[in-house]
Amino acid sequence: MAPLNKNDLSNLSFILNKPNDVSFAERPKPSLASPHDVLVAVNYTGICGSDIHYWVHGAIGHYVVKDPMVLGHESAGTVVEVGDKVTSLKPGDRVALEPGYPCRRCTNCRAGHYNLCPEMAFAATPPIHGTLTGLWSSPADFCYKLPDNVSLQEGALIEPLAVAVHIVKQAAVTPGQSVVVMGAGPVGLLCAAVARAYGASKVVSVDIVQSKLDFARDFAATHVYASQRVSAEENAKAIRDLAGIPSGADAVIDASGAEPSIQASLHVVRNGGTYVQGGMGKPDINFPIMALCLKEVTAKGSFRYGAGDYALAVELVASGKVDVKKLITSVVGFKQAEEAFKKVKEGEAIKVLIAGPNEKM
Amino acid sequence: MAPLNKNDLSNLSFILNKPNDVSFAERPKPSLASPHDVLVAVNYTGICGSDIHYWVHGAIGHYVVKDPMVLGHESAGTVVEVGDKVTSLKPGDRVALEPGYPCRRCTNCRAGHYNLCPEMAFAATPPIHGTLTGLWSSPADFCYKLPDNVSLQEGALIEPLAVAVHIVKQAAVTPGQSVVVMGAGPVGLLCAAVARAYGASKVVSVDIVQSKLDFARDFAATHVYASQRVSAEENAKAIRDLAGIPSGADAVIDASGAEPSIQASLHVVRNGGTYVQGGMGKPDINFPIMALCLKEVTAKGSFRYGAGDYALAVELVASGKVDVKKLITSVVGFKQAEEAFKKVKEGEAIKVLIAGPNEKM
Amino acid sequence: MAPLNKNDLSNLSFILNKPNDVSFAERPKPSLASPHDVLVAVNYTGICGSDIHYWVHGAIGHYVVKDPMVLGHESAGTVVEVGDKVTSLKPGDRVALEPGYPCRRCTNCRAGHYNLCPEMAFAATPPIHGTLTGLWSSPADFCYKLPDNVSLQEGALIEPLAVAVHIVKQAAVTPGQSVVVMGAGPVGLLCAAVARAYGASKVVSVDIVQSKLDFARDFAATHVYASQRVSAEENAKAIRDLAGIPSGADAVIDASGAEPSIQASLHVVRNGGTYVQGGMGKPDINFPIMALCLKEVTAKGSFRYGAGDYALAVELVASGKVDVKKLITSVVGFKQAEEAFKKVKEGEAIKVLIAGPNEKM
Amino acid sequence: MAPLNKNDLSNLSFILNKPNDVSFAERPKPSLASPHDVLVAVNYTGICGSDIHYWVHGAIGHYVVKDPMVLGHESAGTVVEVGDKVTSLKPGDRVALEPGYPCRRCTNCRAGHYNLCPEMAFAATPPIHGTLTGLWSSPADFCYKLPDNVSLQEGALIEPLAVAVHIVKQAAVTPGQSVVVMGAGPVGLLCAAVARAYGASKVVSVDIVQSKLDFARDFAATHVYASQRVSAEENAKAIRDLAGIPSGADAVIDASGAEPSIQASLHVVRNGGTYVQGGMGKPDINFPIMALCLKEVTAKGSFRYGAGDYALAVELVASGKVDVKKLITSVVGFKQAEEAFKKVKEGEAIKVLIAGPNEKM
Repeated sequence: MAPLNKNDLSNLSFILNKPNDVSFAERPKPSLASPHDVLVAVNYTGICGSDIHYWVHGAIGHYVVKDPMVLGHESAGTVVEVGDKVTSLKPGDRVALEPGYPCRRCTNCRAGHYNLCPEMAFAATPPIHGTLTGLWSSPADFCYKLPDNVSLQEGALIEPLAVAVHIVKQAAVTPGQSVVVMGAGPVGLLCAAVARAYGASKVVSVDIVQSKLDFARDFAATHVYASQRVSAEENAKAIRDLAGIPSGADAVIDASGAEPSIQASLHVVRNGGTYVQGGMGKPDINFPIMALCLKEVTAKGSFRYGAGDYALAVELVASGKVDVKKLITSVVGFKQAEEAFKKVKEGEAIKVLIAGPNEKM
Repeated sequence: MAPLNKNDLSNLSFILNKPNDVSFAERPKPSLASPHDVLVAVNYTGICGSDIHYWVHGAIGHYVVKDPMVLGHESAGTVVEVGDKVTSLKPGDRVALEPGYPCRRCTNCRAGHYNLCPEMAFAATPPIHGTLTGLWSSPADFCYKLPDNVSLQEGALIEPLAVAVHIVKQAAVTPGQSVVVMGAGPVGLLCAAVARAYGASKVVSVDIVQSKLDFARDFAATHVYASQRVSAEENAKAIRDLAGIPSGADAVIDASGAEPSIQASLHVVRNGGTYVQGGMGKPDINFPIMALCLKEVTAKGSFRYGAGDYALAVELVASGKVDVKKLITSVVGFKQAEEAFKKVKEGEAIKVLIAGPNEKM
Repeated sequence: MAPLNKNDLSNLSFILNKPNDVSFAERPKPSLASPHDVLVAVNYTGICGSDIHYWVHGAIGHYVVKDPMVLGHESAGTVVEVGDKVTSLKPGDRVALEPGYPCRRCTNCRAGHYNLCPEMAFAATPPIHGTLTGLWSSPADFCYKLPDNVSLQEGALIEPLAVAVHIVKQAAVTPGQSVVVMGAGPVGLLCAAVARAYGASKVVSVDIVQSKLDFARDFAATHVYASQRVSAEENAKAIRDLAGIPSGADAVIDASGAEPSIQASLHVVRNGGTYVQGGMGKPDINFPIMALCLKEVTAKGSFRYGAGDYALAVELVASGKVDVKKLITSVVGFKQAEEAFKKVKEGEAIKVLIAGPNEKM
Repeated sequence: MAPLNKNDLSNLSFILNKPNDVSFAERPKPSLASPHDVLVAVNYTGICGSDIHYWVHGAIGHYVVKDPMVLGHESAGTVVEVGDKVTSLKPGDRVALEPGYPCRRCTNCRAGHYNLCPEMAFAATPPIHGTLTGLWSSPADFCYKLPDNVSLQEGALIEPLAVAVHIVKQAAVTPGQSVVVMGAGPVGLLCAAVARAYGASKVVSVDIVQSKLDFARDFAATHVYASQRVSAEENAKAIRDLAGIPSGADAVIDASGAEPSIQASLHVVRNGGTYVQGGMGKPDINFPIMALCLKEVTAKGSFRYGAGDYALAVELVASGKVDVKKLITSVVGFKQAEEAFKKVKEGEAIKVLIAGPNEKM
């Protein structure tokens, strides 16, 4: 795609009106709100589980879609226009979009934890519109230039990869460690791959669907385990035996949000090990709190991504350490967005990309 | 007590035979097993909740009292004899006893986490005998010399204070922070005091018993809160309002083991804050896992104590920062041990000390 | 001082024209550049060593005063006007001014290390004007409301106290530790006090001037040592003997910038201890690098202050843990600024405050 | 080599009598001093710079060879006999020997920093004999079993690799970072390889000898730089330009001990970056202390190796991430030990291994 003129570009958007009711509309083209901003033509957008959840239920926890909202937040695009103070980017640059903009002024922002900013404006989290649109305005420092050897389609996968990077950083994985990853959906698969990039010697992917495990083994895992309908302790014991880690795993990542997986996580982690909750699920679950206490487990939540995560995600793709292309099941035109959502909802795809409305298919 | 001769000393011990069945017996006097060991005449021993639990139930989790076992592990004593290679202590020195001896060779020990040693031999944890006895043999490096201004009765409180020190270290409390402590039993009270010594500006003690809260306020807390029969979110909100911390507490310590307290802990902690599970309770509870995830809480277990904890506990008493004397409800003679256990079981005392069998009362 | 009207206020400024050439001038009153900014009438400003250095030499390192520049950066003031989006402050609020404004967009800013921002605009660091002026415009989040029990004169001391807070944080001081502070000037004294607030059991102040050591002992130090004209190793040995720390200090802070002090720092620190360079001095010195290597010392620089430092400094004053009032040698009217600079230069004062031009003296 | 009988084995040793005076002697066969010990027949031993230094100068710093001392400490061997309490090893197991034995009782040992133990007994550090001998007695937990795919010759390289592992851990290298390694001798080369294994994207090896740089490029470095006779700032600038890191390196490791390299290290590291001193050299050097201060560099010493380092070194070889075989220039028989020392001293080899006296060549 050659450098583009804003005037020649559509801003057609894919809009959630209410649960299970979506439509397309040409919305007003955004302007640069600050001299530090850039305007980006969106090329590709992946579908995330949260997009599906809003589409089906109209809400996630406290976040409720009250007014029509553009969906999508996993995007890459091409810079069309840059503000006066932008020096890091120029028109024509291909970028991955980090889709949440913090206030930069609160205690969390100033301390380097901007993902915890209470005033975060995050794409496709109501009432903020998302990136399944033609043109997107963003602060330049939230756009990450893609190296020549990273495609725009790969660029759309940087967002979920950044989620996985943040999780693995929370898990503090270091070379030689053993890591168990609960769940082999897109984020779980990417966590397994990032854990390998962090030098983990053993990475066990755990799921209940054998085909996902088969994919995980090809993609990144050194071991895979099909979770059984037995107690959490028994599943944990089987994982330890399988991976040859009798004292338990150095780190356990839950990328499933499922209660039995979280329970097994606490039983499979070693004394003094780390467990990270990355997957979303029920707000309250039955939890082996004494295992956490007596083994002095460090448990951490992981929420979105923060300082350095996007940059590292781009680097992991550019260096070939994580091959995100393998996760792309298909790419469809913008007008096929609703069909794509259906396909993802039905579990028929790992990751589907939707081309931008200005993209020829 | 003047320096003593082993031959003149009784080794009378207080023994748990089976649940609710205790007796006294003169046991063989221990000898130094290694040139690095010392022999100590026990002067005072505090009663811990775990002693009571073994006495009543005969077991804690996997630890089951199968053979008669001497109770007690919160002790201070006087050195009677030292091994050939001991240079840090001499007969007559007054010491606090750290009552668990790790293997020093496993991965955890060598990495500085000896409290997680799988081969730990811990006093009054079956099948290891405890310190409610006349003479005790210990590696010299697990005996901590008491400064002149710390009494032997205070010395017996070093053990629970070390538990609190370890918890507060896990919570990584720093000056200016707000800390909520769930539970105002001995360990909760000591956690509040240690948090103050770590510079916390606000320390909120939470309990369901008003008299304990009154004590907490006098002892260490800047605020106290009587937990209500409302939801965990509502109790958390009330604590935030009371303490003037609308964003939540920097650190929350559960020293209660009670399910509602643990639930409230996750709701009262701030985004990015720390929660430490120090209290023992049910193995599995209903737990607000999404609060942990979305707020990126760091949750840690705390188990016993490790490197540096005893030394700091002694220092906190010597410097006057923690006045452990206030926790001593009464001191009884060795032959009153069973009555003392009853008194503690019935909640009529914060901490009762039992004099050693060689101590004149 | 009652809430003020911008129109009634002077913006008289104290200007360095070139080395040893200062003057007063009424400069244009600043306006709010952003809806997040506030306008502050400056009440008191302390004199810092760097102010003196610019006054005498016209430069510090690469920073050269090429055009006339207003001096001063240690100030407290009263809010006169607030921008539309400011909710944390209102006119009449008394505030300590954090005088450096980072870009909020670079890697360092986003990672929580804004003091390392390469685009930092810092008061009285050329070419940025300073706070020895009548009216000052600042982002609201860099103004810290003073509690009722903290005076505006104390407020002017928050800046050097924040420097000390940052240094002690870099030193990672924890309760029970031994800390040696090289230099008993204002920052060294404040480091000693902050180290005590962090729970250090032993704080040794070291200087070559006995009167400074006498002050240090009254102010915060548990021990003082007058540095001798002997080798660094010998001074280090004497400090260890004096403080009863044969293995060395847990942390050593150099707040002097003097070569012999830095050398002694590396010899007085224990195996595995921490040494922080806070004081400014010669760019290159003779340094005991093998002591650092073989003892696995962690050495850190400390530069200005960052996230949370000002807030903690205010809290330490409000709680009475650091009594900054004691450091104020005198307070003079704005027109006496040059005399005040002379007094500080000649070492006749610890800290001199200059009242703002709108302050009646 | 088949499992061996102690009685059939020689304990011929290579002994340094005084500077430049070595000899061979059959010494008494060691016995197991503790039931936790094992007896090992030494198969291969590498020559370290410190061995050469003792041989030539008879001393390193305070360590002076006063009595004849067996040289050597980089060894692998075969277990011949195990103590009663040893369960981790059995006769015939092939092991890498960690050659320093700490007291396990001091503050440093108990805190997990046993390499800083003041009572460390380290092979070939006077007055402790070294491993250029036939039979070696060691605590079992300081012997690391080699996997089947790691040879005994590779096993002798685990020691210098563990040195590099410890250095890179001190440098806290994480994926995507840029690392500069000063010096391309054995340890510098291994640091470069370990930094790659830790995920560093850019690893720049710096030396003054072009042939070493050529080797470094083949072995592990992504960039190499031949240090010039210019200022430290100029060399640092050239390295930044070469590697495309205008803000500086995330981590810099000095594995040279050379003053100009250490100076350049402080100029090439970024704001907030880390510099580790691993190489031994002059005790005091001219050092850019203000660069450390103003950039808030974290500087750390690295001394030998500690908890987990040997285990990770074995894993890095077993997994193929570090190919230590490439560093072996030659392997000679035990009786050629002195010639081997000469060859290494003259810089004609990277690493020379000496077969044990029971090894057939």
